[in-house]
Amino acid sequence: MTIQSSPSTFADRHIGARRQTDIDTMLKAAGYDSVDGLVDNAVPASIRQEKPLSLDSALSEVEVLAELRRLASKNRTAVQMIGQGYYDTVTPPVIRRNILEAPAWYTAYTPYQPEISQGRLEALLNFQTMVQDLTALPVANASLLDEATAVAEAVLLMRRANKNKTARDGKTVLDADCLPQTIAIVQGRAEALGFDVEVADLSKGLPDGDINGVVLQQPGVSGRVWDQSAVIAEAKDRGALVTVAADLLALTLITPPGEQGADVAVGSTQRLGVPLFFGGPHAAYMAVREGMERTLPGRIVGVSKDNAGVPAYRLALQTREQHIRREKATSNICTAQALLAIVSSMYAVYHGPDGLKAIAETVHNNARALAATLKVAGRELVSESFFDTVTVRVPGKARKVITAAEARGINLRFIDADTVGVSVDETTTAEVLSAVVVAFGAGPVVQAAGFELPESVLRTSSYLQHPVFNTHRSETQLLRYIRKLSDRDLALDRTMIPLGSCTMKLNATAEMEAISWPEFASIHPFAPDSQTEGWRELIDGLEADLAEITGYDQVSIQPNAGSQGELAGLLAIRGYHLSRGDEQRTVCLIPASAHGTNAASAVLAGMKVVVVATAADGTIDHADLQAKIEAHKDVLSAIMITYPSTHGVYDADVREVCDAIHAAGGQVYVDGANLNALVGLAQPGKFGGDVSHLNLHKTFCIPHGGGGPGVGPVAAKAHLAPFMPGDANKAADDSGPAGSTGVAISASRFGSAGVLPISWAYVKLMGGQGLTEATKSALLAANYVAARLDEYFPVLYTGESGLVAHECILDLRDLTAKTGVTAEDVAKRLIDFGFHAPTLSFPVAGTLMVEPTESEDLAEIDRFIDAMITIRQEIDQVANGEFTVEKSPLRNAPHTAAAVVSSDWDRAYPREQAAFPVHSLRQDKYFPPVGRIDGAAGDRNLVCSCPPLSEFEN
Amino acid sequence: MTIQSSPSTFADRHIGARRQTDIDTMLKAAGYDSVDGLVDNAVPASIRQEKPLSLDSALSEVEVLAELRRLASKNRTAVQMIGQGYYDTVTPPVIRRNILEAPAWYTAYTPYQPEISQGRLEALLNFQTMVQDLTALPVANASLLDEATAVAEAVLLMRRANKNKTARDGKTVLDADCLPQTIAIVQGRAEALGFDVEVADLSKGLPDGDINGVVLQQPGVSGRVWDQSAVIAEAKDRGALVTVAADLLALTLITPPGEQGADVAVGSTQRLGVPLFFGGPHAAYMAVREGMERTLPGRIVGVSKDNAGVPAYRLALQTREQHIRREKATSNICTAQALLAIVSSMYAVYHGPDGLKAIAETVHNNARALAATLKVAGRELVSESFFDTVTVRVPGKARKVITAAEARGINLRFIDADTVGVSVDETTTAEVLSAVVVAFGAGPVVQAAGFELPESVLRTSSYLQHPVFNTHRSETQLLRYIRKLSDRDLALDRTMIPLGSCTMKLNATAEMEAISWPEFASIHPFAPDSQTEGWRELIDGLEADLAEITGYDQVSIQPNAGSQGELAGLLAIRGYHLSRGDEQRTVCLIPASAHGTNAASAVLAGMKVVVVATAADGTIDHADLQAKIEAHKDVLSAIMITYPSTHGVYDADVREVCDAIHAAGGQVYVDGANLNALVGLAQPGKFGGDVSHLNLHKTFCIPHGGGGPGVGPVAAKAHLAPFMPGDANKAADDSGPAGSTGVAISASRFGSAGVLPISWAYVKLMGGQGLTEATKSALLAANYVAARLDEYFPVLYTGESGLVAHECILDLRDLTAKTGVTAEDVAKRLIDFGFHAPTLSFPVAGTLMVEPTESEDLAEIDRFIDAMITIRQEIDQVANGEFTVEKSPLRNAPHTAAAVVSSDWDRAYPREQAAFPVHSLRQDKYFPPVGRIDGAAGDRNLVCSCPPLSEFEN
Repeated sequence: MTIQSSPSTFADRHIGARRQTDIDTMLKAAGYDSVDGLVDNAVPASIRQEKPLSLDSALSEVEVLAELRRLASKNRTAVQMIGQGYYDTVTPPVIRRNILEAPAWYTAYTPYQPEISQGRLEALLNFQTMVQDLTALPVANASLLDEATAVAEAVLLMRRANKNKTARDGKTVLDADCLPQTIAIVQGRAEALGFDVEVADLSKGLPDGDINGVVLQQPGVSGRVWDQSAVIAEAKDRGALVTVAADLLALTLITPPGEQGADVAVGSTQRLGVPLFFGGPHAAYMAVREGMERTLPGRIVGVSKDNAGVPAYRLALQTREQHIRREKATSNICTAQALLAIVSSMYAVYHGPDGLKAIAETVHNNARALAATLKVAGRELVSESFFDTVTVRVPGKARKVITAAEARGINLRFIDADTVGVSVDETTTAEVLSAVVVAFGAGPVVQAAGFELPESVLRTSSYLQHPVFNTHRSETQLLRYIRKLSDRDLALDRTMIPLGSCTMKLNATAEMEAISWPEFASIHPFAPDSQTEGWRELIDGLEADLAEITGYDQVSIQPNAGSQGELAGLLAIRGYHLSRGDEQRTVCLIPASAHGTNAASAVLAGMKVVVVATAADGTIDHADLQAKIEAHKDVLSAIMITYPSTHGVYDADVREVCDAIHAAGGQVYVDGANLNALVGLAQPGKFGGDVSHLNLHKTFCIPHGGGGPGVGPVAAKAHLAPFMPGDANKAADDSGPAGSTGVAISASRFGSAGVLPISWAYVKLMGGQGLTEATKSALLAANYVAARLDEYFPVLYTGESGLVAHECILDLRDLTAKTGVTAEDVAKRLIDFGFHAPTLSFPVAGTLMVEPTESEDLAEIDRFIDAMITIRQEIDQVANGEFTVEKSPLRNAPHTAAAVVSSDWDRAYPREQAAFPVHSLRQDKYFPPVGRIDGAAGDRNLVCSCPPLSEFEN
Repeated sequence: MTIQSSPSTFADRHIGARRQTDIDTMLKAAGYDSVDGLVDNAVPASIRQEKPLSLDSALSEVEVLAELRRLASKNRTAVQMIGQGYYDTVTPPVIRRNILEAPAWYTAYTPYQPEISQGRLEALLNFQTMVQDLTALPVANASLLDEATAVAEAVLLMRRANKNKTARDGKTVLDADCLPQTIAIVQGRAEALGFDVEVADLSKGLPDGDINGVVLQQPGVSGRVWDQSAVIAEAKDRGALVTVAADLLALTLITPPGEQGADVAVGSTQRLGVPLFFGGPHAAYMAVREGMERTLPGRIVGVSKDNAGVPAYRLALQTREQHIRREKATSNICTAQALLAIVSSMYAVYHGPDGLKAIAETVHNNARALAATLKVAGRELVSESFFDTVTVRVPGKARKVITAAEARGINLRFIDADTVGVSVDETTTAEVLSAVVVAFGAGPVVQAAGFELPESVLRTSSYLQHPVFNTHRSETQLLRYIRKLSDRDLALDRTMIPLGSCTMKLNATAEMEAISWPEFASIHPFAPDSQTEGWRELIDGLEADLAEITGYDQVSIQPNAGSQGELAGLLAIRGYHLSRGDEQRTVCLIPASAHGTNAASAVLAGMKVVVVATAADGTIDHADLQAKIEAHKDVLSAIMITYPSTHGVYDADVREVCDAIHAAGGQVYVDGANLNALVGLAQPGKFGGDVSHLNLHKTFCIPHGGGGPGVGPVAAKAHLAPFMPGDANKAADDSGPAGSTGVAISASRFGSAGVLPISWAYVKLMGGQGLTEATKSALLAANYVAARLDEYFPVLYTGESGLVAHECILDLRDLTAKTGVTAEDVAKRLIDFGFHAPTLSFPVAGTLMVEPTESEDLAEIDRFIDAMITIRQEIDQVANGEFTVEKSPLRNAPHTAAAVVSSDWDRAYPREQAAFPVHSLRQDKYFPPVGRIDGAAGDRNLVCSCPPLSEFEN
C-alpha cells in the first residue's frame, strides 16, 4: 500500500480525502483529470471570485489553542449576580464531560430518524416532562432558542390561537416587569407584523381596550413574586390568552403558571446547569394548556410504538412543522437548543425534585438574608416578596455600589442611577453575600428573617415524580444512563451522516475545547465591557472573517439559528425599503423549491410571499420569474434564493436573476444554507446578493448537537448595514457600546456567543487556502457519489456541465413506482448498515439527498456506496419477485437485535441478510433499540411526557 | 416510589446506595438493623481506630475545582527544553478528549477478560507493533512503568537470560551516557540483589572482567548519537547480552537497536503524544530479540482465535506472569501504563510512518540550526552528532545561561557549572530557538548546516507499514477508530466491575478534570522548584492526608505502581535492618494466600521468601507461623500480610501476628490492597504495621486505565522514614531540595505525579466522614451480595461474625465437580448479561471473588445478583441433564451477535436465552466482538504484532 506523506496542517486532518491515490480514484469516477478541472466545470465562471480569500495564514491546533487562551485571558471571570434572565449555575462535571464535551452527543443530528435517535429523544422527553411538571401545563416542546424569542413565539401563538371575536385582533399587553430584552424583541416582531403592543404595570390591573394576549413575568425582572391569578382571571374574562414567562427553579417553590390559570408558560432553562456562555446558547422552553398542543411552535417529542409494539420516541406532529407549512407558517423556528435542553434535563434527572427544591430553598434563603441585612442597614427594597433577586433603591449611588462590588469581583445589575439589582444563585457563597452587603455599605450578613413568600404563591403540588427523576443520584448511575442513551444513537463519531443541505462535517476537538473554559463559559452577557475584551475581539474577528468569505460588508453573529438569520436579513431589507419611503414594498418572491423556513421568515418579516415556479431541470422558471416580477414590480421587496439551489446545483444564471430583481427595485436575499459549496470559490456578496444568512452549524463546524445550538449570522452589503440586528438590551445597561439601530433578533447582543469559538477556530485552523480546498473536496466527494450511484439511483438534477455541487439528489420515484420500495425504506435499511440516512424527501418527495462533505474519507464514502448498491440489489429482489415489498428486508428495516435473534424468524430472507448485509458488520454492529416506528399512531394519540416504566415491560 | 432527599455532598454522588430504603433492604438481607451494627460486627474491635479521621471538611465539586485552579496557578508553564528523558509533545486534541478524558477508556480494567477487551487489546497490540517496528526487535511488551525501571527490568532480564557460563555471573555495565536517573535506579536494584554495576564510557570500549550485560543509551543523555555496533559486537563476543535504551522518535531516523545487534531495547514513549505530567505517568517499552520472548517481563498482547475461528486478541503467556510465579519471580511488575501506551499508539496511528519521520526531521533540523548558530558564536558542543539534544560547554556560565533562558520562559538543562543541555522537541518554534540562542549570547539563528548524522547510523529500513498506521489520517477517521475500539469493550461507564481485590469504584469527573490542565500536565519533572509550587503543595497535602488515613508517620507517593510501593516498603525494611547492623535479617514470611507480587517484590528486595500456610478457615495457620518465626527468628526480616486478608476477611488476631513478628525482631508489612475496607475504621499504622503500600488506583479513585497508570505510595512509621524512596535525580539538579536518603524507586521524584490530583480531589471531596461512610457502604454492599448469593454459590470465607469484609469469594468448586461448569464458564456467561466478570480463581482456584465497592447502587448490585441466580439455574439445567456442559449456554458463552444471528443455530437452548437471558437486554445489549478465546492456542503460536487485515476477512 502507498504511504501518504505526513499531514502537516489542520486541513489535512479536516479533509477526509487527502491521499492523492484516493483523489485520483474519485476524479476518475467523475470523469476528470484534476480537482480544479472538475471545480471549474461545476462552478459557473460568471460567479467565481477573482481573488483568493484574504484571511490570516492557517494556524496549527497548538497555535489556535494558544490564541484562544490569549483571548480567554482577556476576559475576566467574576461572581455574576446581574440576573435579568441569566444566572450562574453548577454544571455537574459528569454532565459537562459526558454530554457537552462528548462527540456522541454533540455531533448528533436532529432526531428526524427516530430509530437511531432514541437516546436523545428520551433525554428531550425528559426535558418536556420537566417543563410540564414545573409549569403545571400538560404539553411542552423540546426547547426554543432563548427566552425573549420564546415570548415572541408565545405572543404569536396567542394571536393565532385566540378565537374570541372581540379579543383576537386586540393588542398584546406585556407587564412592565418583564425582562427588558423580552419587551424589545416582542416590540420588534410586532412592528413588522403590524400589531399593537402595550407595556403596563399589570399588578395594577389590565389596561382598557381589546386585548389579544397578556404576558406576565414570574418572578419579575425586579425580583418581585406576586399572585397573578386575579389578573389572569380578568384577562381570560376579557377573552385574552395569557402567557407567563417563568423561572423553572422558582417554580419548585411558587405556584406554577398552569395553576394560576395561564395558557402558556415560557422561559429559560439556563440556570438548570447550563453555563452563562456570554448570553447563549441556552434552551428556552414553552408549555401550553390542553387543546393548544397543535399550535405549539418548535419540536415536540412524542411516544409511539415500533413495528414490534415496543414503545418508541419520535418527533410528533411533524406534519405540522414549519417546513411543511411554508408560506402559511406562523413560526419560522427550525433549529432548537437540543444539546442545552439535554444538559438541563440531565441536571433535573441528577438532582431530582428534592434536590432542585433544596437548591431553590438555598437560593431563596440567601436572598432573604441579603434583603434582611440591607433592610437592617436602612436600604429600601423595591419588592419585599421575591425568590432570588433583590432590587435595592440607593438614590444617586447605584454606580458607586456597582463599582464597589466589581472591585470585590462581583457583578451586580445597574438598573438606573438610583437602583441596583442583586440576583442570588446556586453558586452564591457566604463570602459573596458578605462582600455584596459591604458594597452596599451594609453588613454583616444577618440570618434570613422575614421575606417569606406569601402563602398565596406557595407551591403545594408535586413534580418530577417519574422514576427517571428519582433514580440517578450517584455519579455512576448518571454516567451509565448518559452512556446508555448515547449508545442508542448514531452520530458522526460512528458514521458518516450524508444529509443533503445539512453539511454534517467534522467538529474538530481543537475547535470544541475552548467553549467550556471558564473564561469563556462563565461570562454574563451583561458583564461590563472591561471584563469581555477577549470575547469581543474574538467576535469582531469572526465577523470580519465571515465578511471576507461571503463578500459582504458587514456581518452580525447575533441570530442564534438560521431562521433567525433569515428574519434578520429580511428585516434589514424591510428597514431599507422603509427608510426610502417604500412602505409598499412587501412582496417576497420565493422559488417553489425553497426551504420552508424561507417563506415562514418572510411572513414574520411582514412580507407577502409569492411563489416562483421551478423548471423541469430544477432551476427557477424564468418565464414565471419575469411574470412575477412584472406583476409585483411596484411592491417587490425581495427575492429569496438558495445558492447553490436546494437541488444541489449551481444555476448558471444567478447573476441574471439578481439583476432582474435589482432592476425592479427589489433586494436579493441569498440563503447561505449551501455555503459549503461556495467558500473560497464564489461570494454571494459579489455575485448579486444584498444580504445572506449563514449557518455556522453547517459550513463553519458548530456541531448540530442533536438539534441545536445553531448560529445563523446575517451578512449584508453596506447599504443594509444600518438595519442589521440591534441590541435588545441597549437601554438596559449604559456601560455597553452602541449596537446597531436595527431590530433586535435575539435576547442577547451576541446571541449564542458561547459556541462562536468553534467557528473562529475553524477559520483560523484552515486559513483561506484550507477553506477553499475543503470546498473543492466537498464538490469532488459529491460528484464521486453521484457518478458512482447514478446507474443505481438516477441523479435528479445536475448543472449544465452534468455536475452537481456539494450534494446530489437520488431519485427513487421510478423504483418506487415499479416495486413499491420507498425512499423511506431505503433510509431505514441504511440503518442496518450502520448509516444515518440521507435527507429524505427534501426538496423533492420520493428522493434522497446525499451530501458527503469534505470530511469523509474515500473508504467511508465507498462503504456508503456499497451499502446503496446492496440495497439496490434488494430492490431488484423485490422487482424479481423474490419477496414482496412488505416482506422485504427493506420494508422491515431497521432490524433490532431482538428481531433477528427471535426464535420465530419467518421472514423471506435470512437473518444474516437482515443484520449483516455486509461482512464488516459482524464484529462492530450497531443495532437500533427499536424497529420501524409508526409515526401516525403516535400523532393520533399524542403522548409527550415520559411514559411509565411498565410500558417497557413485556 | 419514595423520593429521596437531595444529595448535598459529593459523598452522596460517590456512594451508590444512599437512599435509606435501599440501605434497609441491604441490611435486612445481611441480617442487621443498622450499618454501624454490621460494621461493628465485621471489623474486630481490637483494630478499630479510636478517633475519627482528622482531615479537612469535605469540599463541593465547585470548591475542589477552585482549589485545584488555585494550585494550578501556582505552577508556571514554560517551554520545556530540559530533556533528560522527558520532552514536550503535542497530544492531538482528538486523542486527549476521546481517550485521556473518556470514561470508556480510563475506567476500563486490565484486559484479563479478553472477550470484553478487544478494543484496548488492539490498541496495545498497535503499541507493541510500533515498538517492534521502531526498535527492529520482534517482540515487545504492552508497556512498563518508566524508562529507568524498564532499564532495571532489562538488567534483570539479562541476568536471568544469559546462560553463558563465564558471563552470567559477571557485572552489569552501564554506559556513562545513560540517563542519570536510569543509573541510579539500576544501582539501587543491584545493591539489594547483590550484583555489581559498573558505569563507564563505552564509546572507549568495554571494561575488563566478566560482563553479564551491557546497557547503552541512544541517543545518550548528552545528545550524542553514535554507531554502537562495534561495542555491541564486542560485548556479545564476550558472552554479554546488550540492552539499548533508545528514543523511539529518534529511531525513525537512526539505525534501530535490533539492527545494531542489541538483544533488548527499552525506553519511554512519552514524547509520542503523552504530556510531561511533571514526570509521569508515561509508558515505557521493552522489546527483545527472538528467543527471549518468554523472559520478557510485563504483559504481552498476543493473537489467538475465538471459538468460531475469528482472530482475537488476548494477554499472552499469562501462565508465565508473576502472579503465578510467586517466590520464583524475577520481576514484580503487575500494573503497566496501558492508558498512556494507548495514547502513544494512537499518536503513531494518527501520524503514521511518514508523519513521525517528518516530526523527527523537523526536530533534528531545529537542533542542527541551534548547534550551527552556537558554533558560529564560538560555543563548544559536547557532541557534534546528535538527534535533538545539543550539549554546550559554557565554562563557568551555565547558571547564567539557564537564568537568561528562564527569564524568556524557557527551561534548559543545567548539567554542571560549565555545561548546559538543550533538547529540541516537536513543539519548538522559531521564536523559541531565537530566544535560546540569545540566552547563550549568540544569534541570530542560522539555517541548519552541518551536523548531518553519519551514514553509519542512518536508518534505511522501513517501519509502521501495517495498514492501521496508514489509514487514520483525518480526525474523523481517528475519532471513529477510537470509538469503535472502545465500543468493543466493557468499562465502568457501562457496568459494575465487581473485581475482588481491585476496587473498581467511581472515578469522578471532578477528580479527573484537572489532570489535563496545562498548568499540571505541561510541567517538566526537573523544572525549577519556583515553577512547581502548586504541584508540591498538592503532593505534600496528599501525602499528609494519606498518613492520617493510614495511621503512619510518613508517606511517599513516588512508587508508580503497587508493586513499586511494595518494593519501596521492603527496601525501607532492609535499610532499617542494615542500619542496625542486622545484615542477616533477610527472611520474609508470606502467607500462602498472598498476592503473587508480594513474593516477587521480596525477592527483588534481596529477601528470601518463606511461605506460611493458610488454615482451613482462610486465616494464617498460627502453628505454622509460630514454627516459621521460631525457625527463622535470627534472620527474620519481615512478614507481609494483607489486611483484610486476600480472602476478604478481617482476621481477628492481626495484632497478635504483628506482636509475634515484632517480638522476633521482624518488621510488619501490611499490603494496602484492601485498604478500601479500612479507611476511617482502622489504621494499619496503628494496629501493628511498620510499613504499607497503598493503591491509589484502587482505594483512592485513580482509574485503572485498562491496566495502568497506577500509583502505589509507601507509608511507614517514623523509624523507617529515613529509608523512604530517595530522588534518582538528586545529583542531577542542584536546584532541587534534598530528597530522602533511601533508594530511589521511580525515575522521577514524584513518580506518576500527573494523576495525583485525582486522589487529592477524592480525599478533599469526601472528607473524613465521607471516606468513612464509603468504607461502611462497601462493607454493606459486599455483605449484601454474600448474603443474597450464598445459597446459590457458597461464600468461602467469613470472619468470626459470619461477615465478610469488602469482598466475598463465591465457591464454584463443588458445582464444578458435579456439573463440569467452571468458574470461568460463569465469568464468561456474565458477559452475555453485560457484566464484567468478578476476579477469577484468585486467591483460590475455582472461585469468583466479588467486590461491589461503595459506588454501586442497589439496582446494579441486584442486576448482578439476578444474573448470578439465572446462571445458577443454567448450572442446574446442566445438573438436570437438560443439556451437557459442552452444549450449555455457559460453556458457549459469551455469545457474539454473529453467533446468535446465525441461520445454522443448532444449540440445545434458544437464541433468546443466549442473547437476552434477562428482558432488559433486548434494547441495550452489549455483544462481545468475539466469542470464547482459546488462550493456549495463542500461546503455542505466539503472535504479538498486528495481524494482516486478510486474517479478518472471511
